[in-house]
Amino acid sequence: MTEQVTPRARNVFVPHAFAEKQVDLGEVVLNYAETGTPGKPALLLIPEQTGSWWSYEQAMARLAGDFHVFAVDLRGQGRSTWTPKRYSLDNFGNDLVRFIALVIRRPVIVAGCSSGGVLAAWLSAYAMPGQIRGAFCEDAPLFSSELAPAYGHSIRQGAGPAFELLCKHLGDQWSVGDWAGFIAAAKVSSSKVVRFFGTSGEPPQNLKEYDPEWARAFVEGTVALHCPHERMLSQVKTPVLITHHVRMTDPDTGEMLGSFSDLQAEKVQAIIRGAGVRVDYESFPDMPHVMHAGDPARYAEVLTAWAAKLPPVEGA
Amino acid sequence: MTEQVTPRARNVFVPHAFAEKQVDLGEVVLNYAETGTPGKPALLLIPEQTGSWWSYEQAMARLAGDFHVFAVDLRGQGRSTWTPKRYSLDNFGNDLVRFIALVIRRPVIVAGCSSGGVLAAWLSAYAMPGQIRGAFCEDAPLFSSELAPAYGHSIRQGAGPAFELLCKHLGDQWSVGDWAGFIAAAKVSSSKVVRFFGTSGEPPQNLKEYDPEWARAFVEGTVALHCPHERMLSQVKTPVLITHHVRMTDPDTGEMLGSFSDLQAEKVQAIIRGAGVRVDYESFPDMPHVMHAGDPARYAEVLTAWAAKLPPVEGA
Repeated sequence: MTEQVTPRARNVFVPHAFAEKQVDLGEVVLNYAETGTPGKPALLLIPEQTGSWWSYEQAMARLAGDFHVFAVDLRGQGRSTWTPKRYSLDNFGNDLVRFIALVIRRPVIVAGCSSGGVLAAWLSAYAMPGQIRGAFCEDAPLFSSELAPAYGHSIRQGAGPAFELLCKHLGDQWSVGDWAGFIAAAKVSSSKVVRFFGTSGEPPQNLKEYDPEWARAFVEGTVALHCPHERMLSQVKTPVLITHHVRMTDPDTGEMLGSFSDLQAEKVQAIIRGAGVRVDYESFPDMPHVMHAGDPARYAEVLTAWAAKLPPVEGA
Repeated sequence: MTEQVTPRARNVFVPHAFAEKQVDLGEVVLNYAETGTPGKPALLLIPEQTGSWWSYEQAMARLAGDFHVFAVDLRGQGRSTWTPKRYSLDNFGNDLVRFIALVIRRPVIVAGCSSGGVLAAWLSAYAMPGQIRGAFCEDAPLFSSELAPAYGHSIRQGAGPAFELLCKHLGDQWSVGDWAGFIAAAKVSSSKVVRFFGTSGEPPQNLKEYDPEWARAFVEGTVALHCPHERMLSQVKTPVLITHHVRMTDPDTGEMLGSFSDLQAEKVQAIIRGAGVRVDYESFPDMPHVMHAGDPARYAEVLTAWAAKLPPVEGA
C-alpha cells in the first residue's frame, strides 16, 4: 500500500454552485473553488473537520462582493488527495502556504472553522513572511483538540468519542466502511456529540468525502504532536479574531459540550496578547459550531466587519 | 517558555571560510553560506545531524567551479533558529522548500548527508513541483533512523544509544549541559558509536552548535512519525543517488555499526525503482559516514559525475 489515494478512485461527489479547480502542490493535488472580485482583498476559507470547501457555499455568495474568495479542500477532505499516515497540522498548514504562494500570490486574510480555525492560527504563526494579513478562528478547538493541552480539557472529551467511533467503524481511507456499526454505536454512546455526525441509514455527503484517518490523528493526538497550541499561539504575527459559539456543560455527564471552554478562550487571548498581537474575541452562544453554514449572513457580516479593520497591505 | 530560541542568545560560534547569510522563512531564520558560479547548476547541501553547514567547507571549495552552491543550517543546527517541540522531517523539509522558493529560485540538485540525506529523499518526494532535479542521499539512515521501520533494524540500535546519552546529558536546548556526565556514560556504554560524538573534556564545536532536542526526536521516533520512509521512498519523483559507506556487524555485540544495512539499501532501491524513478547505488565501504568532510575530493568527484547525468532543466 504505497500509492497515494486520489479522489479519482472515488465516485461520491455531487455538483455545486461554484466550479472546482485543482492545483498540484507537490505531494497533494488540492481541490478548491474561487469566486468574488479580483480587485478586492484576498480571502482563504478553510473548512472544519468532516467538512469540504462547499460548507462555505452559502457564505461565499455573500462574501463575493467584498473579497476575492478561495475555499479549499484540505488533504483528506473533499476531492483533495488522501495522504495516509501524513495528517498533521504542519502538513495541512504547509499545503496552504504553498497554495497561497502558487495560487493566491498576494497577502491574504485566512478564515477557518473548527480544525480549520486552528490552521488559521497556524498560518498566522508559521506561514512565509508577508503571506497572512489576519486570521479568523471560527469556534476553533484551541487546546481542546490536543491530547495533552496546556489548559483545560482534551480531545478525549468533546468531539473525541465521536472521532473514536468514526475511525473505528469507517476505518482509515474508508477501509472498514461499517456505517451501520457507527450508527448502532452512536445510539448507545454516552457522548451527545456523537449524534451530530449522522443518524440515518446513509452517511451524509460530507462524511462520504472525508478520510476517517483524520479522526484517528486527532483521537491519538498525533495531529498536533509537533505543534503544541500554546507555542503556536505565542508566535502568531497578525491580528486574530476568535469567535466562540454554543457551549455548555452536559448536566447528565459533566462533560464539556462545545468546541472549547471559556477558560481556554481566556488563555488563548492572554497568550496572543502576550505576543504583542491584537486579538478580538466575540461570543455567540446562540450560534452553531459551523456558523458559516448555519447562519451564513451573520458569518459574512462578522468577517467583513473585522476584515475592514485590518491594516492595509504594505505597498498595495 | 514560549519564546523561540534564537542563535543570538548563544555565543559559541567560530569564523569560517565562506560568509554566512540569513533569511527569514516565517517561523525560522535560516543561516546559510553561498559560493560558486551563478550560471552553473544550483546545488543545495544539507548537513548531517550534529553537523552545521560548515562540515561542507572543504567540499564547497571543490564544487564551486561546477555549481552555484548553497549550504544550510537546518532549524536546531548552527546559527539557525532553535524550535523546541517542532523537530520533524516535515518541518525540516518544508523549511527547505521555502528556502528554495525564496533564495535559490530555480530547480536545484539536493545533496544531504545522514539525516540530511533522508531530507534529500523527502524533497524529491514532497517538494513543490519542479523544485528538485535530483537527490543525493549520502550514507543516509533510510529505515534505520525510524523507530519502527518497515525493513531492518531501528534507531534504537546504531546511533540510537548515542542520541539517548546526548539528549539526557545535554538536554533540550542545552538545558542540562552535563558534558562530563556524557563522557563518563560514553566510556562505559556498550555502544561503540557513542564514542564518535566526543571523548575530550570540552564538547566539539559541532555539538556546541546543535540543539540536543534533535537527538530526542530521533530516539523517541517522533521526527519521522508522520513520514514513514517506505511511503516517502515510494513517492520520490526525481533521480536518486544512494551512497553507502563503512558498515559492519560488531563481533562483540552483534550490533549493526554504520548508517544503514545492506538489506535496507536493497529495499530502498527496490522501492524507488518500483516508483519508476532512476536510482544509482554506490558502495564505499572504505569511506567514513561523513564522506564530504572525510574525503571532500572524492565526494566532489562522485557528486559531480552523477549530477552531469541528470536530465537538463526544461526551458533552461
